[in-house]
Amino acid sequence: MKPWTTLSRTTILDHSKWLRVEDHSIRLPDGTVLNNWCWIVSPDYVNVVVQDEDENFVCFRQTKYAVNGLSLAPVGGYLEPGEDPLTCAKRELREELGYEATEWIPLGRFPCDGNHGNGMANLYLACGARQVGEIIADDLEEQEIVTLSRNEMMQALLNGDFKVLSWSTAVALALYHV
Amino acid sequence: MKPWTTLSRTTILDHSKWLRVEDHSIRLPDGTVLNNWCWIVSPDYVNVVVQDEDENFVCFRQTKYAVNGLSLAPVGGYLEPGEDPLTCAKRELREELGYEATEWIPLGRFPCDGNHGNGMANLYLACGARQVGEIIADDLEEQEIVTLSRNEMMQALLNGDFKVLSWSTAVALALYHV
Repeated sequence: MKPWTTLSRTTILDHSKWLRVEDHSIRLPDGTVLNNWCWIVSPDYVNVVVQDEDENFVCFRQTKYAVNGLSLAPVGGYLEPGEDPLTCAKRELREELGYEATEWIPLGRFPCDGNHGNGMANLYLACGARQVGEIIADDLEEQEIVTLSRNEMMQALLNGDFKVLSWSTAVALALYHV
Repeated sequence: MKPWTTLSRTTILDHSKWLRVEDHSIRLPDGTVLNNWCWIVSPDYVNVVVQDEDENFVCFRQTKYAVNGLSLAPVGGYLEPGEDPLTCAKRELREELGYEATEWIPLGRFPCDGNHGNGMANLYLACGARQVGEIIADDLEEQEIVTLSRNEMMQALLNGDFKVLSWSTAVALALYHV
């Protein structure tokens, strides 16, 4: 089984730092050429499942534009240009909760859309987290901090209370590690 | 905590049935208006983790355009226009493996991008699955069928062998149910 080969790529929409759309020509292993394959370019991001020194999980309850109603959410945010994922994860933990963690467990790095790209999700579990300073809030969403036991996290996951795809992925993977 | 309100939406790219991009104006609960919020419109899809009558898991090993190298993958595909997710899931199981299942467990319905949309992922676990006919292949990717025990699935998940975000989500959630 051989990969598909990108023959050419043309930007067809340059919206903002959040979105650029390319049109790709692709050659399949059997020689077939696909034209007009859309490819979504958006920033990579991190999600961080946070376990504190008491082995409880520290999450947010918040709104999100693509979500109906409220959702539980892990720490998260977009990588700054040139930033590596773990640095971003530590920065977001510090900014969103005022926390630092003693142990960082990578949970995976995944394309968000297997056909069309849309950035990479970098998922982490941060253990032994504790507050070291004030929250440095710059998110647009309203949110409140919620602390959950492992059983409560599992129940919330299975209830579908983490309503964005990458949020459920991060929590589901994290709970296999603790 | 109140939701954001969409004030207006304008299509700025109508690429194909796979992608349309909208530009939204949004009012936040504090009255702030955000202009030029990009919103990605793409078809909803299903992923189906398949457990056969012997309680083994039936997956694919395949290429995928956004993935480096080979990946394990569950059954999956896009909803046809007007199709409901469970009907799509049953159709994809029948087409991609020639299987039917006796029990369908919904694992969740998630926006793929919490900020910008990009369709909904509908995840299922299909249990008691058995072959009832021939494969009706229409996928562009090369793939081969792989059968894994529960322990092998868990190891593959934790190894990152399911390399697309929704594939790992579906497998991680399914393994909590079996």
